[in-house]
Amino acid sequence: MRILVQKFGGTSVANLECMKQVREKVRRALRDGYKPVVVLSARSGETNRLLTLADEWSTDPDPAEVDALIATGEQVSVALFSMLLKDSGIKARSMTGFQVPITTSDAFGRARITDIDASCLRKELETHDVIVVAGFQGVTSEGRITTLGRGGSDTSAVALAAALGSVECEIYTDVDGVYTTDPNLCSTARKLDRVSYDEMLEMASMGAKVLQIRSVEFAKKYKVPVHVRSTFTDTPGTMVTQEDCEMEAVLVSGIAYDKDQARVTLRSVPDKPGVSAAIFGPLSQQGILVDMIVQNPSRDGVTDMTFTVPRKDLKKTLALMEEIRARTGAQEVLHDTQVAKVSAIGVGMRNHSGVAAKAFAALHAENINILMISTSEIKITCLIEEKYTELAVRTLHDAFGLNHDLGNA
Amino acid sequence: MRILVQKFGGTSVANLECMKQVREKVRRALRDGYKPVVVLSARSGETNRLLTLADEWSTDPDPAEVDALIATGEQVSVALFSMLLKDSGIKARSMTGFQVPITTSDAFGRARITDIDASCLRKELETHDVIVVAGFQGVTSEGRITTLGRGGSDTSAVALAAALGSVECEIYTDVDGVYTTDPNLCSTARKLDRVSYDEMLEMASMGAKVLQIRSVEFAKKYKVPVHVRSTFTDTPGTMVTQEDCEMEAVLVSGIAYDKDQARVTLRSVPDKPGVSAAIFGPLSQQGILVDMIVQNPSRDGVTDMTFTVPRKDLKKTLALMEEIRARTGAQEVLHDTQVAKVSAIGVGMRNHSGVAAKAFAALHAENINILMISTSEIKITCLIEEKYTELAVRTLHDAFGLNHDLGNA
Repeated sequence: MRILVQKFGGTSVANLECMKQVREKVRRALRDGYKPVVVLSARSGETNRLLTLADEWSTDPDPAEVDALIATGEQVSVALFSMLLKDSGIKARSMTGFQVPITTSDAFGRARITDIDASCLRKELETHDVIVVAGFQGVTSEGRITTLGRGGSDTSAVALAAALGSVECEIYTDVDGVYTTDPNLCSTARKLDRVSYDEMLEMASMGAKVLQIRSVEFAKKYKVPVHVRSTFTDTPGTMVTQEDCEMEAVLVSGIAYDKDQARVTLRSVPDKPGVSAAIFGPLSQQGILVDMIVQNPSRDGVTDMTFTVPRKDLKKTLALMEEIRARTGAQEVLHDTQVAKVSAIGVGMRNHSGVAAKAFAALHAENINILMISTSEIKITCLIEEKYTELAVRTLHDAFGLNHDLGNA
Repeated sequence: MRILVQKFGGTSVANLECMKQVREKVRRALRDGYKPVVVLSARSGETNRLLTLADEWSTDPDPAEVDALIATGEQVSVALFSMLLKDSGIKARSMTGFQVPITTSDAFGRARITDIDASCLRKELETHDVIVVAGFQGVTSEGRITTLGRGGSDTSAVALAAALGSVECEIYTDVDGVYTTDPNLCSTARKLDRVSYDEMLEMASMGAKVLQIRSVEFAKKYKVPVHVRSTFTDTPGTMVTQEDCEMEAVLVSGIAYDKDQARVTLRSVPDKPGVSAAIFGPLSQQGILVDMIVQNPSRDGVTDMTFTVPRKDLKKTLALMEEIRARTGAQEVLHDTQVAKVSAIGVGMRNHSGVAAKAFAALHAENINILMISTSEIKITCLIEEKYTELAVRTLHDAFGLNHDLGNA
């Protein structure tokens, strides 16, 4: 039995017309000799509708009940789609998270998959053409309904693909693959045929919305090839997979950017042991994700600490920094929301020097000032003034030859 | 632990305001020292909304998927109500049919409860003040979601009351109890303090919408006292319970009527063995519920067969009768939709003669012509012209002294 997991998001199942296009994708898999396991999200808007109800009913909705409430969204999707398949003579049935079962932790609203018992699903596949599974949801070992957090259906799909030994995990979405950069910013952006898990992780963390980070981590861990493709066309998309020699020949695979950043500086803070912990401990306790951090060399026993946080967390961050400023005797707290991150990502840069220098030179040639720099093994990130974002993306895209099909070695 | 099952229908949970009134009923039970198990229906309109979706998605919706679809309605109710209780400091949690579990047959859309394992619910009651259970739904032994048919939440509640040893099963609705007859027709209609299971069954089958028939059968079988009362007042309602001597002192407990009737006559059908089977076999195969049947004495080897069916089934019935007329050589098929059934119901009539005569005399005194008669141990039913329905109800109500509190012995 050759199993193929196919996942469709909220816009793909929004209404009857969309679901009919989804049915065509399932039909093609059947024609190709697969037993499809179809993972669906809630119809677009449904989860928000239910969350609005929860907020009307309660000032502080119980997370376990919120999960029981919103899990109905996917249940509606899979029941409706199974009906549609049966109407066309395809033997299908729906399964919810508890029916599979997809066992998770009891962290309601952001549960982690701990186990998938695929035996029941496999047995059902013997007597059915297609099984339609509710994504985004699971059940605790105590039998309570959980959800995996926004975008969790991707993770459901990849985890099912791993558990079932699916040849690959198809993730259908409203774009036709992963691009070298945002096509809206850069007309020469090119669809990638392949991208490595690590590159995809860096792109996802930089705000590329194609795949949820956790699903990529899952895919990497279980070596599940993920095929990102469009519900609304028939062309192959991008294969997210393990890196190979061919990939390493390419220095940079993509340029990502993130405008959702704010920069915060604590000026003239006494440079004593423990000062970093004093600053970043409270931020982490509040669940604020600090990304880039730069500490200036100490002078006269004081230093400047600069870091970036998501813009939505700026207010909370400034309040915390004001406390810390008072406690540590730092001079002042500065902030700037007119900043953006631009990154060049590629597994190939691991084995090559000069990539950073090339990026800096290209930005400099366009008079784009670099405010902060951070690098990882496969990523170089520059913080720049927000107004230069589009120019910087196009500049780096050109500098690394991403508009040409043959790479940039 | 004293457990009290409280069931609230769709209009009682329609919106936040209604649910707040439901919360008051739960609070009262808590103050009275009970552990309430609250059974909820879907919010009014929700099941129909989902069924409309099913009809859009499929020309012949798969019953198993319809159940998976509409079971979400109750799941939404119990999650929202549990949030509301927790907001007021009441330790509550929701449970769906599969979580209890309420095991049923696999007759999707009209499943029968086969077992309730109350051990998990009992355990949860040790650490919670209230458990909120989704009515109307269950799960097969194979783990598929089922529903019990319209009004099935009453049955869920009574079955849970039986399984949990609840002191009684409170069924909250938008009327404040069971009446001697329809108060809209008869201003002297009186709320009954008590009514027997058998009387309630006869009243329910006559179209009194207060309780679903299957829930009364369940209550009778497991001897669960059912307390029918209003969500919107605090007065005690009607106790549906086993009959006792006091009840038998009352000849007639209530007058019911049913305007949803059509009369069909097959004229001059050859009176041969097997003719009844030839007529009623096909009707039963089509699921048409034949109620009253009268066969005139045979004359010249032919007879007239007259019976009643629900009006919605008249068209199908006439088509079948036309076939049978042609096959049996009967003269013609007549029908009349301007008819209604009026019944006097009471366990007391078992031990007394003359009840039927009294009913006929009363109707005759008002010049109401009786078209057909059928009697059971505890019920006398007359088919009359529809236009006399209200008058007939009031006439019988008076004749049996139901307007007086002390009965009609």
